[in-house]
Amino acid sequence: MAYTPATEELIRALQGLPGIGSRSAARMALHLLERDTESAQWLNNALAEALNKVHRCPSCRTLTEQVECDICQDSERDASSLCVVVNDADRAAIEMSKQFQGHYFVLHGVLSPIEGVGPEQLAIFDLIDKLKNNDVSEVIFVLDDQMESEATVFYITEQLKAIDVRCSRVTLMHLKNGNLDQAESRHLVSALTNRQEITLEQE
Amino acid sequence: MAYTPATEELIRALQGLPGIGSRSAARMALHLLERDTESAQWLNNALAEALNKVHRCPSCRTLTEQVECDICQDSERDASSLCVVVNDADRAAIEMSKQFQGHYFVLHGVLSPIEGVGPEQLAIFDLIDKLKNNDVSEVIFVLDDQMESEATVFYITEQLKAIDVRCSRVTLMHLKNGNLDQAESRHLVSALTNRQEITLEQE
Ligand SMILES: [Zn+2]
Ligand SMILES: [Zn+2]
Repeated sequence: MAYTPATEELIRALQGLPGIGSRSAARMALHLLERDTESAQWLNNALAEALNKVHRCPSCRTLTEQVECDICQDSERDASSLCVVVNDADRAAIEMSKQFQGHYFVLHGVLSPIEGVGPEQLAIFDLIDKLKNNDVSEVIFVLDDQMESEATVFYITEQLKAIDVRCSRVTLMHLKNGNLDQAESRHLVSALTNRQEITLEQE
Repeated sequence: MAYTPATEELIRALQGLPGIGSRSAARMALHLLERDTESAQWLNNALAEALNKVHRCPSCRTLTEQVECDICQDSERDASSLCVVVNDADRAAIEMSKQFQGHYFVLHGVLSPIEGVGPEQLAIFDLIDKLKNNDVSEVIFVLDDQMESEATVFYITEQLKAIDVRCSRVTLMHLKNGNLDQAESRHLVSALTNRQEITLEQE
């Protein structure tokens, strides 16, 4: 073993971060323990705090530290319009664009049978219940154009045939990681304005 | 603010990791809080444990969890030969090559006036004391060929003029991050075998 047991364990744990292989993890662990224990302590505190405080809003699954998220609590927002997104970063990106005044529903993933992600994991049945029991007249799906995203939109709209709700689809390539640059932001504005309606054939 | 305060704090703290900018940090934070709280909990525990247990060996500055490191405790090793390295990853890489049976001294950096790294930060005076008071007959500097590394070797050898000790220098380009591949390992073996003596002009 090249390093101490606790260092080796830290290297393994760092590989749980997206995009971090064993070499980067070793470099990070050594940097934290050898050169910058102050940053390490800060990261440790911030991570514990976030794990303790941040949870999903029971109503829309946005990450929040309150009982219910800011958006769900805001009576000024338009509860008749619901935007369905894949993750909290996309939700944040749309919020930053200031082009949408309705509510959200965050799936936290897309359907993926191979990875064991089914409708339950994405709380799709909660979404359907929400649409049945509330006065939502319009659902806008803002997802990228990957096959699994398309399948997810298709699955949900199939469930919505029995409900009187208008569905539309916005396809965004660059809506990843939450930080929209100016070009992406313009693209988002134009996409939200020119969204395409999905026609549901009533059964 | 796009995310909750605790999430934003976690994103800032993650930027303390080497090579992680604000976008990667945001992706990591969201991944941990949204999709993989199990990995987040693991990382939190591993980091706390490592910060608590891992410290520098008082004698050679190798990272250890014991009072004194394994190498310093091992009476089979040759205490007359001392290898000076920049960081614990390089020390680990040389250990893995099994080509060196002496002791180490880990600088944890190179001299860098701009970054406020002077001889005190690298414990160079401890190193000199160690060489004065112990039966070390040979010091091998294994550092890369960057200007700051050369300046560090020069600074230390200048201090060693008054001491009866042989100095040699091994220059390694690829001795970074601890994980030597086969080619690097062969290069290390050949470099340690063909090390160049540094002639100290006695004052
Ligand atoms: Zn909410
Ligand atoms: Zn030691």
